Amino acid sequence: MWKLGVNPMSESYAVLIGRKPVMNYVLACITSFHGGAKEVSVKARGRAIARAIDVVEVVRGRFLPDVKIARIGIGTDQIPIREGSQASNVSTIEIVLQR
Amino acid sequence: MWKLGVNPMSESYAVLIGRKPVMNYVLACITSFHGGAKEVSVKARGRAIARAIDVVEVVRGRFLPDVKIARIGIGTDQIPIREGSQASNVSTIEIVLQR
Repeated sequence: MWKLGVNPMSESYAVLIGRKPVMNYVLACITSFHGGAKEVSVKARGRAIARAIDVVEVVRGRFLPDVKIARIGIGTDQIPIREGSQASNVSTIEIVLQR
Repeated sequence: MWKLGVNPMSESYAVLIGRKPVMNYVLACITSFHGGAKEVSVKARGRAIARAIDVVEVVRGRFLPDVKIARIGIGTDQIPIREGSQASNVSTIEIVLQR
């Protein structure tokens, strides 16, 4: 869990989805909102994208029904595989939750 | 590739993402738009969700830059595993492309 932005008043958090169980990230989102966050951005890339959607669905469906999806954005990141070789493209998703 | 809706004038198509290579679905999207579709809905669930985003990124980035993302929706489907047992939840995504 990372706090984003130079303005500490922004109360905007990002939860980066990795390979841990879904509930770990669900807990990170809930903790952020309970800590006063108005907005939590759930971000993932590659195979973790499906897990990001799982996290959002569990947060909204089971724990915080008042949380709304403010925005969903998709994109592409370029990842250098090895030095000198061509970069590989990986899809990304960002789901912005607001309370 | 399925044509949706009772109105054949709607020109609205759905591409359901499964386990085939990304380019198969990219081709399905391009064919729909070239066939006159104004709107193509890319749908996936579970692990295919990441592939759905790959498809949209390739269609827009490499082939049809004039195609816009009109809407991205996420949700949960309930899948019965076995008769009598509890249903399993699976996340879904729908990305609506418009030209």
